[in-house]
Amino acid sequence: MRPLALTMGEPAGIGAEIAAGAWTALRAAGPAFFLIDDATRPFAVPVRAIAAPEDAAAVFPDALPVLHRPLPAPPVPGRPDTANAAATIAAITEAVELAKAGRAAGVVTNPIQKATLTAAGFKHPGHTEYLGEIAGTGIPPVMMLACPELRVVPVTVHEALARAIARLTPAMIVETARITARALRDEFGIAAPRLAIAGLNPHAGEAGTMGREDIEIVAPAVATLRAEGIDARGPMPPDTMFTALARPTYDAAIGLYHDQVLIPIKTLDMAGGVNVTLGLSIVRTSPDHGTALDIAGTGRADPASLIAAIRLAAELARARGFA
Amino acid sequence: MRPLALTMGEPAGIGAEIAAGAWTALRAAGPAFFLIDDATRPFAVPVRAIAAPEDAAAVFPDALPVLHRPLPAPPVPGRPDTANAAATIAAITEAVELAKAGRAAGVVTNPIQKATLTAAGFKHPGHTEYLGEIAGTGIPPVMMLACPELRVVPVTVHEALARAIARLTPAMIVETARITARALRDEFGIAAPRLAIAGLNPHAGEAGTMGREDIEIVAPAVATLRAEGIDARGPMPPDTMFTALARPTYDAAIGLYHDQVLIPIKTLDMAGGVNVTLGLSIVRTSPDHGTALDIAGTGRADPASLIAAIRLAAELARARGFA
Repeated sequence: MRPLALTMGEPAGIGAEIAAGAWTALRAAGPAFFLIDDATRPFAVPVRAIAAPEDAAAVFPDALPVLHRPLPAPPVPGRPDTANAAATIAAITEAVELAKAGRAAGVVTNPIQKATLTAAGFKHPGHTEYLGEIAGTGIPPVMMLACPELRVVPVTVHEALARAIARLTPAMIVETARITARALRDEFGIAAPRLAIAGLNPHAGEAGTMGREDIEIVAPAVATLRAEGIDARGPMPPDTMFTALARPTYDAAIGLYHDQVLIPIKTLDMAGGVNVTLGLSIVRTSPDHGTALDIAGTGRADPASLIAAIRLAAELARARGFA
Repeated sequence: MRPLALTMGEPAGIGAEIAAGAWTALRAAGPAFFLIDDATRPFAVPVRAIAAPEDAAAVFPDALPVLHRPLPAPPVPGRPDTANAAATIAAITEAVELAKAGRAAGVVTNPIQKATLTAAGFKHPGHTEYLGEIAGTGIPPVMMLACPELRVVPVTVHEALARAIARLTPAMIVETARITARALRDEFGIAAPRLAIAGLNPHAGEAGTMGREDIEIVAPAVATLRAEGIDARGPMPPDTMFTALARPTYDAAIGLYHDQVLIPIKTLDMAGGVNVTLGLSIVRTSPDHGTALDIAGTGRADPASLIAAIRLAAELARARGFA
């Protein structure tokens, strides 16, 4: 298959190390990828600078293919340098352009350090929003987390829990669920996706005795989705919807707040959790962890989540017809 | 070891069935228990009416020992009858009295149907509160859920999530954590218990950028606990504190709301989760499920959680010196 493009992420973080680890794990059987980074940086594995993505496949069994983009400042592990911010962003932009042009099968992004990019003038809250701008499809991009046992999508993400509850509306749930259902069908190849919509309160409110939101906000959203022909169930009691018996009954769980879905997926599969951005014109996945500045350069970083992200990106690319 | 007392729970529920299932699983190796119930009811296993707890051990390998307490109305599966409410409550009271007298090693309770008991005049919101009244130690009883990989204690339980957040105080967290630490030491035999105190907001609020509660409510509670010599850490980012790597670093997780702790434990171990009441003068555990009226009488009820509850009660009884 066409190779995947892997961005450098924060050069002072663990990106180069886990890229090397992923190459070691995948060199024999694939999927093949190339890293957009400075090929003159020290790597713990053989690397080869390539001139174009088309050279990656031939190189991949023997060396980590690196699309060489020089960094102005030599990266120091653990110490982000705003001098490298533009190159970090440029790697994301280039990976997306290569994917849009069909020269890469999809994009896998290494973690970035938002504060460093912001200090250098980056205006977007994060990867997802930037990707929505340069690879959007007219709908807001949505974050899914996936592991072999579970796919989850949060309706609200990085905000105070009390605020997330206060501003929750049926429309927010409906929009997230719609995008998820469409992506499961078009991007994952699931013909009739089944969605489980979480309730907000304990036991989904027990008929209103523990909060009215499940009756007034979640149930109407589920009704709207069902009226549109989407196989949605809920509000589900949040504590029983992630059990081993319940998980196989749906294709994705829609949660109302960050920890409602992040807790079960990380309880199940800390290392294998993969972040997938739904609703883009390209495939995009990323590992479900940060830059790990505290251990960068020590060789202790675990490439497992990046490996899972690369494998899932390849699956999604295949579902989109890449070969 | 002295036998455990198992209550009948709601007679129209699955209590008698799972008691029979637990006896089948445990008859050979123990721990031995006796059921307080009507011995003339149909059971799917051999039963023998016993006159006193002291007769249970000899009977246990051959039949389910039942301390015979006649029910006024023959139980109909799935149809609770208030005529049996007094006997249901009396079984709890008697089990506790036997445990307080040292004639039972501890109490395991089958699920009750609160609405039925309430209709018959029962004034307590549930088992735990009633047990606090008849077997209290001057501190509020606290609910712990335990499975082999994880012990969790929620600070707030059955109330709307928005309300739980609004009324959360440092004092509530401190009191729950104190009772938990003491119980881990005195009831579980853990000399220096380690507590992980969950944050409220995503990433524990990231220095106040996503809510102030972690700074203003949780952190002061942790500081108070540490000043008292309790090994408490937090506020912990809720999504990473239940990972496979994090779980072994503490003896119990204190969560701030129902689903923050119910989700991870049920994700891990739906059937084996056991409810333990801390801070009582006696050992008390129960399965982590309800009366299952919908499947009562069908033989489909899974005794796994009751078996886990009986085993844990025996462990806790041993830690209290029962032999």
